[in-house]
Amino acid sequence: MSRKFFNFSDTDEGNKKTKSYRHIIVVVLVLCISFVIGLLIGHFGIEKDSNSSKEGTHSGDGVFLPGVPEAIVRDADPTVSDWILKELNAERIRENLRNLVSSPHVAGTARDFEQANDIRKFWLDVGLDVAETTPYDILLSYPDDVKPNLLKVLNSTSEIVLQSPDNELNLTSEEKPWDFPFPYLGYSGNGTVQGRIVYVNYARTEDFDYLEANKVDVSRCIVLARYGKGGRSGKVKRAEDRGAIGVILYSDPADYIAPWVSDDYYPDSVWIPPTATSRGSIFRGTGDPLTPGYPAIASAYRYDETDEESQLPMIPAMPIGFQFAEKLSRYSRWGRLYDMMMGGEDAPSGWTGRLLNQTSYKIGPGFNDSSLMLELSVHTRNERRISYNAFGMIRGEVEPDRYVMLGNHRDSWVLGAIDPSSGTATMMELSRVLGQLVKEGKWRPRRSIIFCSWGAEEFGLIGSTEWIEENSNVLDFRSVAYINMDIAVTGNYSIRGLGSPPVFSAMYRAAQKVPNPNTSDTEHPTVYDTWKARRTLNNPEDGSSLNIPKISSPGAGSDYGTFQIRAGIPCADFRYDQDYAGEGILFYPLYHTSYETFYAVDELIDPGFVLHSTIGKMSGELLRDLADSKIIPFNMSDYGLFLEHYTYAMEKNASQEIIDYNINITELHRVIDLYKEEAVNFHKIANNVNTNNPVDVRRINDQMIQLERTFLDPASLPGRTQLYRHLIHSTPQNSAIPEASFPGMQDAIYKLRQEPDNPDFIRELQHHFSVLVFTIQAAAYSLKDSTEFFRNTM
Amino acid sequence: MSRKFFNFSDTDEGNKKTKSYRHIIVVVLVLCISFVIGLLIGHFGIEKDSNSSKEGTHSGDGVFLPGVPEAIVRDADPTVSDWILKELNAERIRENLRNLVSSPHVAGTARDFEQANDIRKFWLDVGLDVAETTPYDILLSYPDDVKPNLLKVLNSTSEIVLQSPDNELNLTSEEKPWDFPFPYLGYSGNGTVQGRIVYVNYARTEDFDYLEANKVDVSRCIVLARYGKGGRSGKVKRAEDRGAIGVILYSDPADYIAPWVSDDYYPDSVWIPPTATSRGSIFRGTGDPLTPGYPAIASAYRYDETDEESQLPMIPAMPIGFQFAEKLSRYSRWGRLYDMMMGGEDAPSGWTGRLLNQTSYKIGPGFNDSSLMLELSVHTRNERRISYNAFGMIRGEVEPDRYVMLGNHRDSWVLGAIDPSSGTATMMELSRVLGQLVKEGKWRPRRSIIFCSWGAEEFGLIGSTEWIEENSNVLDFRSVAYINMDIAVTGNYSIRGLGSPPVFSAMYRAAQKVPNPNTSDTEHPTVYDTWKARRTLNNPEDGSSLNIPKISSPGAGSDYGTFQIRAGIPCADFRYDQDYAGEGILFYPLYHTSYETFYAVDELIDPGFVLHSTIGKMSGELLRDLADSKIIPFNMSDYGLFLEHYTYAMEKNASQEIIDYNINITELHRVIDLYKEEAVNFHKIANNVNTNNPVDVRRINDQMIQLERTFLDPASLPGRTQLYRHLIHSTPQNSAIPEASFPGMQDAIYKLRQEPDNPDFIRELQHHFSVLVFTIQAAAYSLKDSTEFFRNTM
Repeated sequence: MSRKFFNFSDTDEGNKKTKSYRHIIVVVLVLCISFVIGLLIGHFGIEKDSNSSKEGTHSGDGVFLPGVPEAIVRDADPTVSDWILKELNAERIRENLRNLVSSPHVAGTARDFEQANDIRKFWLDVGLDVAETTPYDILLSYPDDVKPNLLKVLNSTSEIVLQSPDNELNLTSEEKPWDFPFPYLGYSGNGTVQGRIVYVNYARTEDFDYLEANKVDVSRCIVLARYGKGGRSGKVKRAEDRGAIGVILYSDPADYIAPWVSDDYYPDSVWIPPTATSRGSIFRGTGDPLTPGYPAIASAYRYDETDEESQLPMIPAMPIGFQFAEKLSRYSRWGRLYDMMMGGEDAPSGWTGRLLNQTSYKIGPGFNDSSLMLELSVHTRNERRISYNAFGMIRGEVEPDRYVMLGNHRDSWVLGAIDPSSGTATMMELSRVLGQLVKEGKWRPRRSIIFCSWGAEEFGLIGSTEWIEENSNVLDFRSVAYINMDIAVTGNYSIRGLGSPPVFSAMYRAAQKVPNPNTSDTEHPTVYDTWKARRTLNNPEDGSSLNIPKISSPGAGSDYGTFQIRAGIPCADFRYDQDYAGEGILFYPLYHTSYETFYAVDELIDPGFVLHSTIGKMSGELLRDLADSKIIPFNMSDYGLFLEHYTYAMEKNASQEIIDYNINITELHRVIDLYKEEAVNFHKIANNVNTNNPVDVRRINDQMIQLERTFLDPASLPGRTQLYRHLIHSTPQNSAIPEASFPGMQDAIYKLRQEPDNPDFIRELQHHFSVLVFTIQAAAYSLKDSTEFFRNTM
Repeated sequence: MSRKFFNFSDTDEGNKKTKSYRHIIVVVLVLCISFVIGLLIGHFGIEKDSNSSKEGTHSGDGVFLPGVPEAIVRDADPTVSDWILKELNAERIRENLRNLVSSPHVAGTARDFEQANDIRKFWLDVGLDVAETTPYDILLSYPDDVKPNLLKVLNSTSEIVLQSPDNELNLTSEEKPWDFPFPYLGYSGNGTVQGRIVYVNYARTEDFDYLEANKVDVSRCIVLARYGKGGRSGKVKRAEDRGAIGVILYSDPADYIAPWVSDDYYPDSVWIPPTATSRGSIFRGTGDPLTPGYPAIASAYRYDETDEESQLPMIPAMPIGFQFAEKLSRYSRWGRLYDMMMGGEDAPSGWTGRLLNQTSYKIGPGFNDSSLMLELSVHTRNERRISYNAFGMIRGEVEPDRYVMLGNHRDSWVLGAIDPSSGTATMMELSRVLGQLVKEGKWRPRRSIIFCSWGAEEFGLIGSTEWIEENSNVLDFRSVAYINMDIAVTGNYSIRGLGSPPVFSAMYRAAQKVPNPNTSDTEHPTVYDTWKARRTLNNPEDGSSLNIPKISSPGAGSDYGTFQIRAGIPCADFRYDQDYAGEGILFYPLYHTSYETFYAVDELIDPGFVLHSTIGKMSGELLRDLADSKIIPFNMSDYGLFLEHYTYAMEKNASQEIIDYNINITELHRVIDLYKEEAVNFHKIANNVNTNNPVDVRRINDQMIQLERTFLDPASLPGRTQLYRHLIHSTPQNSAIPEASFPGMQDAIYKLRQEPDNPDFIRELQHHFSVLVFTIQAAAYSLKDSTEFFRNTM
């Protein structure tokens, strides 16, 4: 069975032909035969001496695997990068977008269902191997078809003196307010309440604390809060907790129109017009509210909407445009001009926005004319509906059980040309480009690629969360990474990158391969160059530039939240966006309004769709690299840097608490140093692995894809019903200490700043710190060689 | 780069030599050269046409992997089975045991530390690749060195009228009560309490319920409870919850001496002598009490002992022998004979044991002479100590990152010749036998083998739990199975098998390879035959024999509890034991007493150690099979049968609750049928896989080892501080419905039987049921092909 190399005695053929020298042709023939026989024996006949391998030595000859395709040892085909760059077509993205945003496609509606099916069919058409839609039975929320949500000012005889508009104004041919759903906040309580108005600024904890300190009681009042500096659902929750009976949210011009803009707004520019009303969900959880932690399948146990587990708001709430907010504070009635119609004290300076260029805002409670009363009527209803995810898959050639996913949600609040369809249009084009290679037999990635179109993200990342909850075990073991493509483009200023540290370097490499869409900027030939120039990562220890582009931790703002935080799957997300900081605004102004139109994207944001195709190319190149490279292009060392940055931020922003509560920061530094050391060792071993050995390759890759899961902790955050938390990437419930620090530490420190002596909070801080330290140590040990991990000592 | 097969134009060498025909020697030489060149090109130069493999077709030719050992495709070496059977030496096990039990080796003591090091050195000596000890800083509990725990009966002038002995009697040369730790219950509260005595039978919930119904108040009393029918810690907890101030536990002859035995006890036989006192832990949790859920490393946050999270008992408790229990109920004082010294009503008939052949027991409270008072003085103290695990590893040749583990705890309560050293002695011999093959270069398993010697199991599976908590992520992804070897032999009646369904068939196969140690029983040539004959598995649906041996679900009775329940790692455990049921007793009588001596094992239980070596051979063969077989010998289908059995049991024992609380049992059957179908499909695919393809082999194996993890739920059981629960194998908190049903359902049904209308309990039942149904469905889907899993629909 086993033959020694060069052992001719085993091969009779070597001696057989010595008699044939009669004729040159015969000689040539025999030479050829001899060569061919040698060739055949060399190719098929020679196996490694099995005795030597029994001793575990790699004797250097090798093994022949009958019936196994060469793909098992082949590395990625580099020409596919060029194909993506060449083929990804801006005009097709534009056409995809035009089709997607022809009408509203709110989650759970007929149009949404239709789009799920359209995308499924599209994926089959463009050549993916499998395409499916999967349903979940979830709680959604809709405005009434007939009765708009309304805000009224009533006088003492209940006459209406002021009433909010039913819907946003029609400003281009695309907005059809007469056909569009009334503005609403998803999962709002419904009914009609009357009360005095109180202005609560951003409705943050510190805002309510200010009111309390100034003896302004919001209980039994309707609060008016501006959008921004924190999530919608938290604003409503805090109002509810303090006894408010209703909430009105509006977008203040100070937060969504740059200071130098006067009347230059949509459709002339991207700035919000006066009736622009931003919708959104005010559910506090993630996933279907009735089935927290588990998939919303038919057999699921469903909590009642009023159960605490559902995390639903109880009081009515609605959004308004800033025009109506202006009317509330200053309007003309029966010929008399009421400046500062709202009563009470002046708000502090930080509370003043730019409503009609007022120099100060009033807090209330109530109006100057105390006979006037505010009435809020909300007709929004919760309803169980079927919501679909759609999937399209390319089966991996060598490792079909390793998944690299790329997805976006499909549902919008109205037309959703930016959120989410800019991403969907781009994802579709990318799937077409890759599908074509597969269809034509030119390429098949080493690992499986799954394209995902999520349902009901807007309501609380529901489609992706239910899917992860249903398939958590399978995804836990098989997932390599998830690339998100939600809002692809909001402006042409710079890339904004979100990601998990293992993917950073692959994200950079992808950006280095894609040309700068601004071709006139010859100093910055690639997207990487312009990204680095515009958004540089600084060392938080000393503020010095690290000379690489900034990538932030993914929060829970899109479906990556579920992947990163619940499932511990490394994520990446690219976007081309505006320079919000430079423009002095909080986010892209048309966000979640009816004015997210094809027109806005095509004319105002990305004429020619070159930014869209840039995002498509970057995401596509990253996808290809992760799916096709024999050794997954993860860098384990970047987590070390990331953890260090978080530690510096904590040391800077919570220095007093570190002393007061005996937080052993030295121990944290020790385990981070250990992590860094093990990461370096790991890559040394990985670089020296025999890449012809598919099991060794898989072992190295397994260690890399499993690292992120180490940071998952099965104990959910206090007061949340989800299972698991991510020790590094969970969104803190409160932002007591600035960005870039450990979420569990932020939460505990925040609580201690309210109540410095509360023993429960001290325990929470100290316990969480010890879990954090241990987890980083466990991550370090997970990178050790397989025979070393259990050497762990204290 | 890629050459077409037979494309000579690529190989100049093929044409170069055509001119040399002058001389036969030259011709021969040239032929040889030509052949060699062909050989070399064939071997190294020809790669498979990459175009054909790009299309994902397996063209049937194959691939050559330079530098890769043949072991990558080799299957298990079957001769190793014979080696184990031949080499495993009973006399060596005997010598191992003799050395291990020369003195007490309680966890955390010097002797325990010494044994950890001895075992580590032993493993290096016998040829394992790596051996280590790993420390944890945990809370343990010890009796005082000088002051024994005592029970006294005092008269009204506080004179001692009766006092318990300091320790058990010296009956052979091995018991040295003057040197041995005083009998105690681990983690008992300490101090001295005085109170009236109440007999509470087994201190089960129903026992306390009976007392309550009969107006016997145990509050401020010291309760006397017999061992058995439930764990020690639960007895103390229930007493504490009802206000008792102390607990005495004793072993009633009715439960630990067969009815036909008169005065024939240890050292004449295995039955308990009158002073035999069974020790044990009364901590309710698993793992270090101060660091629940997380490893007890230096940086760990430690709860206080009085914190609820620690789950420690608060009241003093101690064990006594039945002789002193007899004295308490009937003894002579100043010449007067007090029959039924205890006062109060007669206990119900089920409460009567066999203390001095009394026909009925009294409940109390108090003695007949009400001036007499019981005093309990416990000097046991909790103490933080370092406890060590020891590990010895054989590095897997092909998949070093796949772990098959075999372990036992090392710590005993006294000498521990049965528990645990019978297992340790056998494990050591097995490691010697396998180590020798490795050392001599004759064999190296495909996967890594880890031998484990756990610390502090007796105190609450602490060593294994801390290790799993510390390495959970690594073990989650890499573990194949854990084989436990605690108490190896208690009698010669039959094998008792515990295991997780995927391992059942491999357990059976191992038993089929090992000869029946009773060589005179020619009708049953193998262990399998005798096991099947003595303990047959019946179909719970109709009671018919399934003609296979019974294997039970592992509970939390040894370190497998942590592996199975906390980590979802399939477990197996073999033991040769007594026929408790036939003998009318509850467990092996000498359990946790000083009389677990070498003498007891060598003379009474297993003279010649043939039963020990049988257990060693079965465990060793199972270990070999799991570690060395190319395709892991798991059977996915057996879970289907197992789940069906549980369902039948539930239908039978909770039929009313199923109706009353709308438990959709049809849905449960549906998902179990689905599971069975997917398991059959899976094995069809697995049987057809090209086993020359190491990645395909690994993919199939990965699916199998990950199945068990699907049954883990991150939500811990209500009221417990551990993380995770296992939906099938967790130990129910209460045994409301008989053995063999889902633990979470049992717990919820139990509660509902106490309070049928409690909405929280109804919710717990329904929610748990839905999680169970979903989880079985997820397990089914995890067995699908990699491109199919996301087709899941409702």
